[in-house]
Amino acid sequence: MKKIIGILGGMGPAATIDAMGKIIKNTPATCDQEHIPVIAVSFPDIPDRTENILSEGESPLNKMLAVLRILEAAGAECIIMPCNTAHYWYDELKASTKIPFLNIVEVTCNKIVSEVINNVAILATTGTIKTGLYQERLKKDNVNYVVPDDIQQGIVMESILAYKSGDVERAYQLMETVITQLKHVGIENFIMGCTEIPLILSGCGDKERYIDATGELVKKAVGWCCLVNNGTK
Amino acid sequence: MKKIIGILGGMGPAATIDAMGKIIKNTPATCDQEHIPVIAVSFPDIPDRTENILSEGESPLNKMLAVLRILEAAGAECIIMPCNTAHYWYDELKASTKIPFLNIVEVTCNKIVSEVINNVAILATTGTIKTGLYQERLKKDNVNYVVPDDIQQGIVMESILAYKSGDVERAYQLMETVITQLKHVGIENFIMGCTEIPLILSGCGDKERYIDATGELVKKAVGWCCLVNNGTK
Repeated sequence: MKKIIGILGGMGPAATIDAMGKIIKNTPATCDQEHIPVIAVSFPDIPDRTENILSEGESPLNKMLAVLRILEAAGAECIIMPCNTAHYWYDELKASTKIPFLNIVEVTCNKIVSEVINNVAILATTGTIKTGLYQERLKKDNVNYVVPDDIQQGIVMESILAYKSGDVERAYQLMETVITQLKHVGIENFIMGCTEIPLILSGCGDKERYIDATGELVKKAVGWCCLVNNGTK
Repeated sequence: MKKIIGILGGMGPAATIDAMGKIIKNTPATCDQEHIPVIAVSFPDIPDRTENILSEGESPLNKMLAVLRILEAAGAECIIMPCNTAHYWYDELKASTKIPFLNIVEVTCNKIVSEVINNVAILATTGTIKTGLYQERLKKDNVNYVVPDDIQQGIVMESILAYKSGDVERAYQLMETVITQLKHVGIENFIMGCTEIPLILSGCGDKERYIDATGELVKKAVGWCCLVNNGTK
């Protein structure tokens, strides 16, 4: 069997499915049997990441570690975690396992740097913005980025929460408001740095302006599987 | 935490994702944490079910049993298997586990019988048709059904294989050809009795004519979780 991708998921559940769909789309296959095996543990009751970062709500770390232990026992051979904010705990998670654990922020920023993308806005949860996960890495590589101002960031977060509550239309309208404002001040590129954002913007046309963190993570994972399966790694 | 749904999946991988999406859609939730936890083991290299039934290709049973053992060890509390043809081995799988294991054919036929749906065509893999999984149950309940003739069944199977190979457009055109022919001879209702068929027909308008086996299975599973979580079962 091919190498198994393990998904530390549920943050949120739709983002986990989005990642699984993107694994299929990025795998060249002509029948079921050529696809990559996936074990997805989608536990949506992992405490809210942004709440913990902003107001010291319950830490999600213990539950994330529990999911990681399930994935290890089940035989996962490469871990992905389709939630940007959860990567605030990435170092602790990675240190606790011997399985390769890909980093969504790293692979997304690698794309931005290698394709010399500048003038980019970070669309993410308020938790992700607060932690500086993206800003630190982009600053290091001299990428010219902006973050939404406080009012805009409030709207971005409201959009993400609207999506999570099932209000897809309102989520889209809110996100579109902020994107339009940012375009008016000259922003040309947008990091979809929360795994709900590709879902919120799924009906949106001009995809070349958007850097899909989930998509980058999945491409890296599929590439890893193919390399290992071909015996070249 | 809520009760965990385990998905014996990968047959095919897109059908597994479809089932997970339908779990979300059928769960009343206003935030991540209110959703149902899911462990999906999507192993697409499980040998082809129809090939085994029709021409004695490798049996999928051992690999399905292996996935079931992974789900048990990981803590799944209710099993669903979003593949109709795989239910040919349902009795052996169910007998091997103490975890409740819902049956896609049973829940779908229960809906047909309870809603007094007649004049129904069974759209399924040639494997499912050959085993008589749906026919036996519908006959027992005096439901008036038809199966496609041999030429039509060949086209249905070609459609399913086209979808699995990634040729979504051709899959739709082939399936639509058979549906149109069946409508011309007076068929009014269609069982989407292969988990790829809701995906093939996802752009199709008149959903009330279609009985979605995946959807029925998921509704039953979500209902089971809600009952158990409310302490009434």
